[in-house]
Amino acid sequence: MSKILVFGHQNPDTDAIGAAIAFANLQKELGKDAEAVALGEPNEETAFALNHFGLTAPRVVETVANEVEQVMLVDHNEFQQSAADIEKVEILAVVDHHRIANFQTANPLYYRAEPVGCTSTIILKLYKENNVEVPKNIAGMMLSAIVSDTLLFKSPTCTQEDVKAAKELAEIAGVDLEGYGLEMLKAGTNLGTKSASDLIDLDAKSFPMGGSNLRIAQVNTVDLAEVFARQAELESAMQEANTANGYDLFVLVVTNILDSDSEILIVGEPKENVEKAFNVTLDNNRALLKGVVSRKKQVVPQLTAAFEG
Amino acid sequence: MSKILVFGHQNPDTDAIGAAIAFANLQKELGKDAEAVALGEPNEETAFALNHFGLTAPRVVETVANEVEQVMLVDHNEFQQSAADIEKVEILAVVDHHRIANFQTANPLYYRAEPVGCTSTIILKLYKENNVEVPKNIAGMMLSAIVSDTLLFKSPTCTQEDVKAAKELAEIAGVDLEGYGLEMLKAGTNLGTKSASDLIDLDAKSFPMGGSNLRIAQVNTVDLAEVFARQAELESAMQEANTANGYDLFVLVVTNILDSDSEILIVGEPKENVEKAFNVTLDNNRALLKGVVSRKKQVVPQLTAAFEG
Repeated sequence: MSKILVFGHQNPDTDAIGAAIAFANLQKELGKDAEAVALGEPNEETAFALNHFGLTAPRVVETVANEVEQVMLVDHNEFQQSAADIEKVEILAVVDHHRIANFQTANPLYYRAEPVGCTSTIILKLYKENNVEVPKNIAGMMLSAIVSDTLLFKSPTCTQEDVKAAKELAEIAGVDLEGYGLEMLKAGTNLGTKSASDLIDLDAKSFPMGGSNLRIAQVNTVDLAEVFARQAELESAMQEANTANGYDLFVLVVTNILDSDSEILIVGEPKENVEKAFNVTLDNNRALLKGVVSRKKQVVPQLTAAFEG
Repeated sequence: MSKILVFGHQNPDTDAIGAAIAFANLQKELGKDAEAVALGEPNEETAFALNHFGLTAPRVVETVANEVEQVMLVDHNEFQQSAADIEKVEILAVVDHHRIANFQTANPLYYRAEPVGCTSTIILKLYKENNVEVPKNIAGMMLSAIVSDTLLFKSPTCTQEDVKAAKELAEIAGVDLEGYGLEMLKAGTNLGTKSASDLIDLDAKSFPMGGSNLRIAQVNTVDLAEVFARQAELESAMQEANTANGYDLFVLVVTNILDSDSEILIVGEPKENVEKAFNVTLDNNRALLKGVVSRKKQVVPQLTAAFEG
């Protein structure tokens, strides 16, 4: 039996790494020679979770065809978010909660996507369908992934299934859901040690919109003022990124995980489309977006409508 | 609540229609306003099954955006096999057992694919996961789909899961699996009433291979001699199709569903690639392929290797 690598997307977050560990373990229980790997180092939030549950970070790889012929993907499907040589291997399975795009296979495969808040919620179902028990430490990691993806259930991407799964996993892991969850989210908000250019690249994605090239980054914090104390430094890093990469407009979304609000910082043009998108007036390149926490549901569609409408 | 259309691929076979009926019924039980439709009239095998279980053929549509905003696909995903205006609607769910290609969505969706022999095998699982009972007549239609796709379990695409599902469905439907299955397959082999040009177009697909344009059609029979009594007429229809559509080589695969062998008839060039693919010598443009019943697994890959190798 040949080995199978299991991994999440580039720039891995807690779900990308947690779901890979959980799904690889399930495959091993089902008799497959599966290993969880990652397309990058864990971020501070993920490192906190791994450490809390006594798990080792998965080995980091950039390419996969040099060591295996078959892989399984979690928490992503689009090839540009995957291993650099993904088209050289056979994809046996995908478990995901995103749209499907830029993805294709030569053979029939196992594909399980559901419109829920977190891949780990789906993976818990797969354990049950296969009558496999979730080990205590892996339950903790899956719980961490749900807390991370849903911002402790405050994101509009969160479904009742995510809440139910998290409660069940907290029970198995033996942790207090609210207490542990907030502690883990806070561990990911330690931005002080990062340079401005690292900070705006931590969780950043590019989006072409109506002829403009947008870069939209998001960081979590428990103190908006602490982040905006570095506004000049951040603006300068964003300006540099725009020039170096041809972005027309850089949107930094700074999310307060305690209040579930976000403040945005804008560098580039046309700024009036941002004002139109969120029905706000920028002041000193900033605006508070009340109740906004999800880039996927509350930022990208609104900007798309303003730029393409 | 707005209406949702559920449908299988163009040129529908028994699985495309049976899975649409079964999945639409499941969605209705789960509270959705779903209707099964079809992208074409049922073939004779499917009509036999519908009639046997007292079901009406789904309404035939070509486009969907004129009546709904949301759809669910069964037994296919590739857009060129789907409704003509598939890109104008939101795809909420897909249940399928094919490779994924030429498919994308703007939003997260429910996608359930498994590498089994028939979509209806997966749909039986979905009924169970949702604790919904399969109605007797729909169980009969799902059973018919499995028999059709696996040629009564003789196709190499058939898995143990398909066999298990078919037995369970036969019990619910109250039919003798082997007896009914053979009767249904035979109903699809009534080729005598069809013109030669209809016959070579019943189940035909095009495949570009290494610079050549191949057309590969398959028909089922219980009597190879009866089909080949019309060899001259068939060759002439294949020659016409080649000329009219720019095919270099037409391969007609005539499958004996009783013996699980196929005899091929070839019109076009280069014929030596066909001989190489199957390690046979053509005699009067024909060759017997022992044990070959699956175009997907036993014909297309072998021809691809010969044409591209």
